[in-house]
Amino acid sequence: MTQPTTVSEETITDVAVARWATAHDPRTAELMTALVRHLHAFARETGLTEAEWMAAIGWLNATGQISNPKREEFILASDVLGLSMLVVEQNHRFDPDATPATVLGPFYIEDSPEMNYGGDMSDGLPGDPLYVHGTVRSLDGTPVPGAVLDVWQSDADGAYEAQLDVDEARLRARYTSLDDGSYCVRTIAPLGYAIPMDGPVGDLIGRTDIRPMRPAHIHFMLAVPGFEPLITHLFREGADHLDDDVVHGVKQELVVAFTEHGPGPTPDGGHRDTPWLEARYDFVLQPT
Amino acid sequence: MTQPTTVSEETITDVAVARWATAHDPRTAELMTALVRHLHAFARETGLTEAEWMAAIGWLNATGQISNPKREEFILASDVLGLSMLVVEQNHRFDPDATPATVLGPFYIEDSPEMNYGGDMSDGLPGDPLYVHGTVRSLDGTPVPGAVLDVWQSDADGAYEAQLDVDEARLRARYTSLDDGSYCVRTIAPLGYAIPMDGPVGDLIGRTDIRPMRPAHIHFMLAVPGFEPLITHLFREGADHLDDDVVHGVKQELVVAFTEHGPGPTPDGGHRDTPWLEARYDFVLQPT
Repeated sequence: MTQPTTVSEETITDVAVARWATAHDPRTAELMTALVRHLHAFARETGLTEAEWMAAIGWLNATGQISNPKREEFILASDVLGLSMLVVEQNHRFDPDATPATVLGPFYIEDSPEMNYGGDMSDGLPGDPLYVHGTVRSLDGTPVPGAVLDVWQSDADGAYEAQLDVDEARLRARYTSLDDGSYCVRTIAPLGYAIPMDGPVGDLIGRTDIRPMRPAHIHFMLAVPGFEPLITHLFREGADHLDDDVVHGVKQELVVAFTEHGPGPTPDGGHRDTPWLEARYDFVLQPT
Repeated sequence: MTQPTTVSEETITDVAVARWATAHDPRTAELMTALVRHLHAFARETGLTEAEWMAAIGWLNATGQISNPKREEFILASDVLGLSMLVVEQNHRFDPDATPATVLGPFYIEDSPEMNYGGDMSDGLPGDPLYVHGTVRSLDGTPVPGAVLDVWQSDADGAYEAQLDVDEARLRARYTSLDDGSYCVRTIAPLGYAIPMDGPVGDLIGRTDIRPMRPAHIHFMLAVPGFEPLITHLFREGADHLDDDVVHGVKQELVVAFTEHGPGPTPDGGHRDTPWLEARYDFVLQPT
């Protein structure tokens, strides 16, 4: 026969921390006990009511249930709360001369098609033709060949593949830097966009003056042995919302001019009869 | 043309707090800014890695997706983290002589059938016959008539209706106290049980020495105008796990003897030819 143990408002946090401290893996114990302490501190500080607690449970349920492999509403929530950017920052304290990291965002899709130097990942979609090119380098300037650049972006209306009902890969591809470290992505200029506002995150944003916009950008994920993996964006210079990106992803170092060119030779060695845009950027990787 | 605003590890929390402080409702602003601060404090203190962040996103998704109106995995998560009990405690600082509140738990189902005094909510299910009866009173001892007692419990195997594939209400009913404040529930003795271990919460518990058990109990939700609503349990005296209830719900005041009786008259005014159990409890409500 066991003696009842009464838990009170004063003792509940210590009791719960002691329980989760029994996790077999020390890191799990560290994370779970910290989670209990911070969750309880939030509830105590705000005097969280039962109605608010129940609303939070409902919000969490809705957020999980609207999510699927093409819509990551919890990632979006983390993004707009600034948590994603904080986690990125504290895990990528790169040299100031290295290309900084920024958020992954909710629209990444794995296994994009492989493309050669200058390959066109826009595949005839309407928009301003854009060549993004440059060199992948190490901190000391050495070119980095064989770096995989996994690229994805919105279209000229601001929509990602993940938001559309399409069967084929759309505005995403994997390029590989050449022996001299060079890469060239042929695409169209992305448009800035509003984050999805038809779900639980949009419901919260709609209760504030937060502008739900992201400035025009292209996502890059770079991976090559010997260097820290890099997840980042290139932002279009002069775009709207570079000053109030809803997911806190902007860094001055990632803002790149999209230079207008008339008809003539293009960075992929070809030639265009119509105007085109050029974005030149050298990715500088942090050695591991 | 907007000037880029660079966010850093040092500034991200303040920037995000300032954004959410624009919520139109002051309480929403208070809750959201506190949430940002505490979430960020958790991530900073633990040095949360991107892999851990992604695992958390996956866990949240899975928890939302396994949930349905009969399985509230986020409530279960809140329960085992001690958050539910903390929220209950800080919202029900009742007089020490009032019946204390405890957690709702994940198995409550609305709209239970109404039953008269002594009505049998076990409806022939196997188990030890049990009569739970007493009086609903105010703090000053005055009987409270017309109080609705919404009752739900596990069966003699420890299973709730919400865990079974049944069409009819099972081991749950709504009783109403009579003019003298008395109530009488005819049921069977519940068994203690393990919380569901086949979901994301069970996965976490399984990585610890936490025993996933609850002591045998019956849930009560009492509502009547003029008094604070009361959500509570009655626990069976001597049951296993009164000392380590996985959801932290036990209070000494809620532990009640299940007294064994031989054949004879029963509290509902009837008579049994076989042994039965009696649990006597007076609910004391806090006036509003």
